[in-house]
Parts: sequence; structure tokens; C-alpha cells
Amino acid sequence: MTRRTVAVAQVGGIQPDEDRPAVVERLVHLLEEAAERGAQFVVFPEMALTTFFPRYWTEDTDRVDSWFESAMPNPAVQPLFDRAKELGVGFYLGYAERTDDGHHYNTAIVVDSSGGICGKYRKIHLPGHSDNRRDLRAQHLEKKYFEVGDLGFGVFDVDGLKVGLCLCNDRRWPEVYRVLALQGADLVVLGYNTPLDVPGWQEPPHMKMSTHLLSLQAGAYQNSLWVAAAAKCGVEDGSYMIGGSAIATPGGDILVQALSDSDEVVVGTIDTDYSEPFRRSVFDFEAHRRPEHYRLIIERTGRGEPVPAPIP
Amino acid sequence: MTRRTVAVAQVGGIQPDEDRPAVVERLVHLLEEAAERGAQFVVFPEMALTTFFPRYWTEDTDRVDSWFESAMPNPAVQPLFDRAKELGVGFYLGYAERTDDGHHYNTAIVVDSSGGICGKYRKIHLPGHSDNRRDLRAQHLEKKYFEVGDLGFGVFDVDGLKVGLCLCNDRRWPEVYRVLALQGADLVVLGYNTPLDVPGWQEPPHMKMSTHLLSLQAGAYQNSLWVAAAAKCGVEDGSYMIGGSAIATPGGDILVQALSDSDEVVVGTIDTDYSEPFRRSVFDFEAHRRPEHYRLIIERTGRGEPVPAPIP
Repeated sequence: MTRRTVAVAQVGGIQPDEDRPAVVERLVHLLEEAAERGAQFVVFPEMALTTFFPRYWTEDTDRVDSWFESAMPNPAVQPLFDRAKELGVGFYLGYAERTDDGHHYNTAIVVDSSGGICGKYRKIHLPGHSDNRRDLRAQHLEKKYFEVGDLGFGVFDVDGLKVGLCLCNDRRWPEVYRVLALQGADLVVLGYNTPLDVPGWQEPPHMKMSTHLLSLQAGAYQNSLWVAAAAKCGVEDGSYMIGGSAIATPGGDILVQALSDSDEVVVGTIDTDYSEPFRRSVFDFEAHRRPEHYRLIIERTGRGEPVPAPIP
Repeated sequence: MTRRTVAVAQVGGIQPDEDRPAVVERLVHLLEEAAERGAQFVVFPEMALTTFFPRYWTEDTDRVDSWFESAMPNPAVQPLFDRAKELGVGFYLGYAERTDDGHHYNTAIVVDSSGGICGKYRKIHLPGHSDNRRDLRAQHLEKKYFEVGDLGFGVFDVDGLKVGLCLCNDRRWPEVYRVLALQGADLVVLGYNTPLDVPGWQEPPHMKMSTHLLSLQAGAYQNSLWVAAAAKCGVEDGSYMIGGSAIATPGGDILVQALSDSDEVVVGTIDTDYSEPFRRSVFDFEAHRRPEHYRLIIERTGRGEPVPAPIP
């Protein structure tokens, strides 16, 4: 049995002129509240150190550089690492990463209670577009600013718990949870930024919350694992993003959920024992899965014609 | 645009001594009500012609034979085919199939409005067990009575609509909807029998309905298609099965849902246009899916160790 108290540290809007030290101070406050409430692991959002900059088109490389971290930890973020280590709390943190050789990724790390980075993920399902849509109040340029992640979907040992990593839009893709579950993940953690204003058509605003929660609940249930998701939310530079940070159970229920759209800590205790009966019955993968019939999932990317099927 | 009025014809308990003509008469009544209410296609349950016999252990081959159809249609079922053709209504029907060469499958067919069988599916995700668990009031012997289906997950043209077929427990497996969506399915149809009494552990009774609906909603949303599911439900020979027959929308909402646990028709109008904006944005598979990172889905059946991942 692994029992672990997990906090989801939701972060309200970060304005474009808010500098790293100010943001990190907010994160440290959330971490301290989480630790006071018994949390041993804290999930922070995607791009938790900056405003959700993919809404801006720019060709000014200095401005772009200002959004990315070229080392982790770095002096501005070090106080978060230090405080977490002091408190003996692990965490997940999303940020924009620029590598030494000039690659750009939408990245998340996990840090264990001793302060070491023990897992890393670079976002694979990048939403939005890469072209300049000038007529939009807020663009969604993840496909411009980031490359598709090159590390796959990994599961890492975080203080004895098997933790799978993903980011934001990944949560809507069932392949993600499945690949993590097939590696034995007990908990999937993710941060997200989900703006209401997006380019082109998406679901109506009132469906943003239901499809978000549905995605977490389905991923948790269909894979007999826990899911903890932290939002960056509220208003950033005039653009609204949903809250709804939550922990979903292996039964597909919501264990805890944030109610605000600002800085807020929600805490829940997860227990890997609760997953076990699901894994031994309805989701006994070894007994029930039939991969020979799933090949189209990797053989096709987009929708195509029906494979001719016999009618005996 | 394809607009189609679809009925889900939920069937209450079928007792072991209820013969085929009596059952077929019930199905015809449901079909007639559906047609009166404008339905052009009717979804019947899994094993819609018999009681849910996998609850019984028997080695009496005559008794087993009595549960299976060796031809479809056959004289007992012909009145359903005839009435559907008269009314110009297509349908999905689940039944236990014995082939000429002695194979046994849990099968579903689709019949178009001209009365022809235009698609067939043999269940792939068989739940339950194959051993005799004498201590149980109701067993779940699908793995004893049926072989794993050999036709894959097919999508068929039913009067101009692309319809994907599956059965019962398949609805809990995200691979099923994905394989059907990758073949362009606009509607996934399924019948189910979901008993509360099952061998070994499963989720508590109060979760049977939430996990059922969650599975339909997630499959519909994550694949931008409609899902229509029909229950056999109520009490059969002392064993209770849930109702909850429903149609889920490409937005993950429930369009209509049965409220009883007996014979009941629910009707909804689906529109393939409603799926399109989802398919062009968040679920533009061609733009966003990354099959090179999904390989574990077919390379592994059960859960295994994490694939070693770099932490650059």
C-alpha cells in the first residue's frame, strides 16, 4: 500500500509584467499551505512561471527568450526548490524550456522530497496553430513556440510512488493515460492552461469545464489510477482561463476540486490499494486487452475509410 | 449533413423460460413505438433474444444450444426483420451466435432500412471468467461460452451513416472508440447487460451507473462521434442489471437517457454536422495525434515496468 497526501496548487492569472521572483513567491506560499495541510506532493500548473504567452504573436527573440527557462532550477526558481526540500515535499512544475542547443519545449518536471529532479516530460499533444491570426484577441500559438516533445510518456519513481507525467491538452487523449498505465503508473499528474478564447471553433464556453473533468475522470477510471490536475486560471491580460483543478479517483469520481479561479490549494489522500480491485477485475489488462485489434491506433494518424470487414 | 433520428430500445428482464416468439414480440412493440416517434434506426441490447445466460454454469449442450442462434434471421426472429422493413427502420441487434463449424460468439448485427444485414461484430472484450464458481448466485461466464471475436472493430454504411459496432464491456475500453473513429465512424452503437452481482470484486453497486455513463461520454467526446447504447436491465431470474440506456453527444453530454429498468424507448436526433467542428479543432487527429508515442498500446497487453526515460 502507498498512501500519499497530494495537493493540487491552482494558480490564478499571471500578468505579462509579473516577474519570476513574484511568481515564485506565490508558488512558495501555495507550497507552504499545501505542506501545512499535510501534502507530501504538490502539483503546479503548466507554464507556471509566466503568463500563458502562446496567446501573443511576436518575432522579437528577446521577448520570446524572456518566457523560457534555459536551466532548471535557476536562480529565480531556486527558492521553490529550497523551500520544498526544507519541507520534505515533492512537486510537479510546468515551464517553457529552451535547451542549450536551441530547442524549445513545453516541459514539466517532477522533484522528489530530497529536492532532486527525478522525472521530465516534454509536451507531445501541442494544440493550436503556428500561423499569425491577427484578427484574434488571443491566439493559441503552441505549435509556433514549441516543438513536439521528444521524451515519450514516462513514468517515474517519486518517493516510492509511480508517477506518470503529461501536460494540459494531453489529458484529452486516451492514448496518454493508457501508455502511462501500461508502465504501471499509480498517479498521473498534469498542469493546464485552458483559455475560453481560442482561435477557430472549439466547444462552447459552458462545455470547457465538463469536457475537462470528463477527460480526467475517464483517464482515471479506464486505467485504474489517480489523476491530479492543476490549472492556471482566471484572467490574464484580458483572457479568461478555467479553474477546476481536481483529483480524480480510479473509480472515475472527483475526489476534490477547486472552486475558485484564483490561487487555491486543494488536498486529497490517494491510496494505491484503492486501484487494485479495479486492476484485478474489469481492468485486468492482461486478461482482457486484445492489442491485435488495436493496430489502427498506431497505423493511422487521421481519420480514414473503414477497413473492409467481412459479414459472415 | 446527415441527420438521423435514433431510438435506443431498452429491454427489461427476459426470464429463462421466456421463449423466442414472446421476446421477439416485445422487440417488435419497441420497434413500433420507436418508428411512431420518428426513429429511423433502433438499437436493441446485447443478447436481446435470451436471458443473460452467462450467469449459469452448465455442461448440458442442449441447454447451451437453446441460447444460441445458428442462423440470422431465423423463423423466430423473422417477424422483427419483417416489421422493420415494412416500417423502413434499420436496427442493431445483439444475440449469441453458433456458426456452422461450431464456433460460439457474442454477436451483433446491423440491418438497414431495406431489411438487409449490412454489418456484423463479434465481441472482443469478453469479461468475466471461464471456471465454475459454484458459490456465486450469478456467475459471469462469457469467457466460457464465447470465443474472442474474429472480425475486428468494423464500421459499416447503414443507410448513408457510418456506424461502428461494439458490445457491452467494449464500451469501457478507449481503444474501441478510437479504432472505430479512425475508420470515420459517425455513430457507435452497442447493447449491454450490466449485472450488479458479479464474481470477484468490481466497483460498488452505486458506481455501476456512473462508470457506464462516463464510458459512453468519454468515448463520444474523445472521438467526436455519437454513441447510442441499449441495456437489457431489471431483474432476470433474481439477478439485477442496470438500465441507463442513453445517447451521448460528440461534446460528451448525455442527449437522452432511459429512466426505468424495464422496456423503454428513448429517442434522439443526431446530426453529423455537430461532430465536425470538434474534428476540425481539438480533435483534429491528423494535426495533433502522435502515433509514434503510442506504440506501447499494441506492444504490451498487461501492465509492466516503466520504460527507462532520459531526464535531459
